Amino acid sequence: MRSILVSVLPQLLCVAALCAPAHAQEPPPLPAAELAALREASLRVHKEVLTRRETYSTLRELCRVAPKRLSGSPGAAAAVTWARQTMTRLGLEKVRLEPCVVPRWVRGQVEVLKLLEPAQAAGPLPILALGGSVATPEGGVTAEVIAVSSFEELTRRAAEAKGKIVLFNRPFSPTELSTFKGYGGAVGQRVRGASAAAKVGGVAAIVRSMTPNLDDVPHTGGMRYAEGVAKIPTAAVSTRGAERIASWLKRGPVRLHLRLDCRSLPDEESFNVVGELRGRESPDEILVVGGHLDAWDVGEGAHDCGAGCAQSMVALATLKRLGLRPRRTIRCVLFMNEENGLAGGRTYAADHAAEMPKHVLALESDRGGFTPRGFTTDANPRASAILRQIVGLIPSGGDRLLPGYGGADISPMKRFGVVQLGFLPDSQRYFDLHHTRIDTFDKVHWRELELGTAAMATVLYGVAELKATLPRNPLPRPKDVETPQPTPTPTPSRAR
Amino acid sequence: MRSILVSVLPQLLCVAALCAPAHAQEPPPLPAAELAALREASLRVHKEVLTRRETYSTLRELCRVAPKRLSGSPGAAAAVTWARQTMTRLGLEKVRLEPCVVPRWVRGQVEVLKLLEPAQAAGPLPILALGGSVATPEGGVTAEVIAVSSFEELTRRAAEAKGKIVLFNRPFSPTELSTFKGYGGAVGQRVRGASAAAKVGGVAAIVRSMTPNLDDVPHTGGMRYAEGVAKIPTAAVSTRGAERIASWLKRGPVRLHLRLDCRSLPDEESFNVVGELRGRESPDEILVVGGHLDAWDVGEGAHDCGAGCAQSMVALATLKRLGLRPRRTIRCVLFMNEENGLAGGRTYAADHAAEMPKHVLALESDRGGFTPRGFTTDANPRASAILRQIVGLIPSGGDRLLPGYGGADISPMKRFGVVQLGFLPDSQRYFDLHHTRIDTFDKVHWRELELGTAAMATVLYGVAELKATLPRNPLPRPKDVETPQPTPTPTPSRAR
Repeated sequence: MRSILVSVLPQLLCVAALCAPAHAQEPPPLPAAELAALREASLRVHKEVLTRRETYSTLRELCRVAPKRLSGSPGAAAAVTWARQTMTRLGLEKVRLEPCVVPRWVRGQVEVLKLLEPAQAAGPLPILALGGSVATPEGGVTAEVIAVSSFEELTRRAAEAKGKIVLFNRPFSPTELSTFKGYGGAVGQRVRGASAAAKVGGVAAIVRSMTPNLDDVPHTGGMRYAEGVAKIPTAAVSTRGAERIASWLKRGPVRLHLRLDCRSLPDEESFNVVGELRGRESPDEILVVGGHLDAWDVGEGAHDCGAGCAQSMVALATLKRLGLRPRRTIRCVLFMNEENGLAGGRTYAADHAAEMPKHVLALESDRGGFTPRGFTTDANPRASAILRQIVGLIPSGGDRLLPGYGGADISPMKRFGVVQLGFLPDSQRYFDLHHTRIDTFDKVHWRELELGTAAMATVLYGVAELKATLPRNPLPRPKDVETPQPTPTPTPSRAR
Repeated sequence: MRSILVSVLPQLLCVAALCAPAHAQEPPPLPAAELAALREASLRVHKEVLTRRETYSTLRELCRVAPKRLSGSPGAAAAVTWARQTMTRLGLEKVRLEPCVVPRWVRGQVEVLKLLEPAQAAGPLPILALGGSVATPEGGVTAEVIAVSSFEELTRRAAEAKGKIVLFNRPFSPTELSTFKGYGGAVGQRVRGASAAAKVGGVAAIVRSMTPNLDDVPHTGGMRYAEGVAKIPTAAVSTRGAERIASWLKRGPVRLHLRLDCRSLPDEESFNVVGELRGRESPDEILVVGGHLDAWDVGEGAHDCGAGCAQSMVALATLKRLGLRPRRTIRCVLFMNEENGLAGGRTYAADHAAEMPKHVLALESDRGGFTPRGFTTDANPRASAILRQIVGLIPSGGDRLLPGYGGADISPMKRFGVVQLGFLPDSQRYFDLHHTRIDTFDKVHWRELELGTAAMATVLYGVAELKATLPRNPLPRPKDVETPQPTPTPTPSRAR
């Protein structure tokens, strides 16, 4: 019996490997002692953040000091000053500002959409201009409206659209279980609607707000004008406003009046705000964690992305306070200009190009401060298997590792093979308030927010403390990547 | 090679079994075709509930028609009438009322706690009488206060407590990742505090509210007087109120004045409300699903437990509308009197004792209408393995099966070997509003609520449609169980 067993040992091992979970096939699992130490560290971090509630108090401060902080605004400058002071107060190391050049767009004073006809329906509709939109002529634009559900429908009805205001009314699908999928299915009309409308002779573009809810809250966001196409004004209307227009359209012509005085100003200098927890053994190996410091100029940017900024800073501060200084350096980067340009993310990758081969991981929190569900990653299989083991230690239920996106600000590091990781909180409430006046501090729950900090700190510490460095991603072929642009174009070049 | 492999096949299989997940060892997994059909059904259910949002509209109605529905009250009677009508409207079958006898406790008009001394701190503190408390004497109780953190401390300081108002000030631990664990660690002082205080000569008991938050919202709840001990009045003070008393106590004596005119009235007849989706093949085999229809007499009982009631009804209605009539019967039972007696749950188990051997599963939703995380169960290993496979199909992330509690109302069925299953939503926000004036409909998020309905419908349909009946739990030894009491005592006999 023994001799038979010995002779087939390779086969037995092969069977064992086959029936192990697929994700565990590649590398040997992390040693039990390493995992046990990390689990212990994670529990300490969770207890600490739920006791101190410092992410919550930090976010409250940001929302009070600099609620409106669109790139290039005085609010953004106040946020930069606050972030530098706060990192210093929290004990982060090598705190500094790293300059970048950002576009500046201002909403102006006038933002009006009125339903004029039919007369019995006349009245104002709730809108927000889209970031990057041009103004209307002084007296506004008055025209009939045509509603479409897709770019294809607009193309088909091009003749009808001429001289009209185009309403892009494709609903955000409520049946996607992740609201980000619903968003992804609808946001194209916000980003590209104005130019699509202009191409067929439309005079303005109104877009149904990006939310699965039926309510009176307009959601702004970035848009892009296509090159060589006339720039026409564009705004988001609340979902109830869109429904109202569409329902009157079924009975006959509807005339709208739109007036906006938003405009783009010259570029401004701004900053990414950076601080570190220096590694104790290999300080030149770097993990980046961050969110974006800029936010739309309505509301307070509490979930988008104040939460991610506060979590990133407090994750480092918590590790330091608990004496959990890992082998490698963890660098907190609060990026400027995610919302309408990505200047901060591009500049960081370009300015640190020489250091990129030593960048081990980039983690972004930019999906709100809700209860942790896990993380998404583009990691190669060996790195994925290690990340899965580390993420699996998170005790709050946020222990899933799924394939997916890291985050906009860290995406320019992809071309250097830097593994991308995105914090994934519960998504159900995010698009209630994303890019709205109601994305305010009172919508943040202290426990949900702090659990996110602890989940992020667990992964950061785990990867920064690994005995062997996390395997990098293969470098993408040159044609697959965009060259990072340290200086963005003045008009918003990226929307989310 | 082939001959060697054949000769060691048993060993190979043994290795394969060892490296399979532990939970899959016992029964053979459900056939792939059965799982695929169930996955498909679950996706249809999820899409349907997110489109119709009927759980949300049903709950809105309940909160408007019968916001205050403590057992025996006119509100509870209105809720019973509404539930019967709603089940009928939703197409449930064999809709009926099943009588039970419930205690009746009324809060009265006066509910006052004042800090009298030190004079510079004088003022009212936010309280709610605990359900079951006796009134104070007409003029109230005025006495010095002693604050304790545990029953042990009270015993140690028994001499000091005589003639005083006892403040039970043990905090609800904020560091437990499940708030239910924090609740479990603190709720004993609410349930047994009054009698513990009376035993050492205390004149009233004030209990710190059951929440990890520091705020001004008092949380009521059930309490029990021990037999043979004087009944003294008792109320919950907000956590900030408790902190205020405790902080003044550090500087010197604190005098309080308490006045309550709550009281118990004679028992009343009330009802469980029952409806079914009859099984197409084995209608005598029954799965029970429910929540409790009663709620505390403050707020609207939106999360506790209007959400569970609406989810239970709409889960059945959704399956029926989609043509998903399973082999076995699913019975929706909206239980009366969970909050202060459990009369409904006890009566159901007693009145249906003859049917209990055919009760396959009991599922309760009584932890709020938040995003699904999974289910807890006391199922035997074979049933657990099957349930784990079914729960694992839930696509919203609520796919975990953990060992644990089913629910208070279904617990009297345990003694018959009925497998208990508790719906487990995200717990972070529940104790913001549990048993308070702010447990109102506006705190419920439509997507979170509907995803719970879909998760419950998935499990119900899966178990009701199994080819082989889910294995029952072994009958507990008689000494382990309490005999169900169809008629509860007039004073609340169970707190949660």
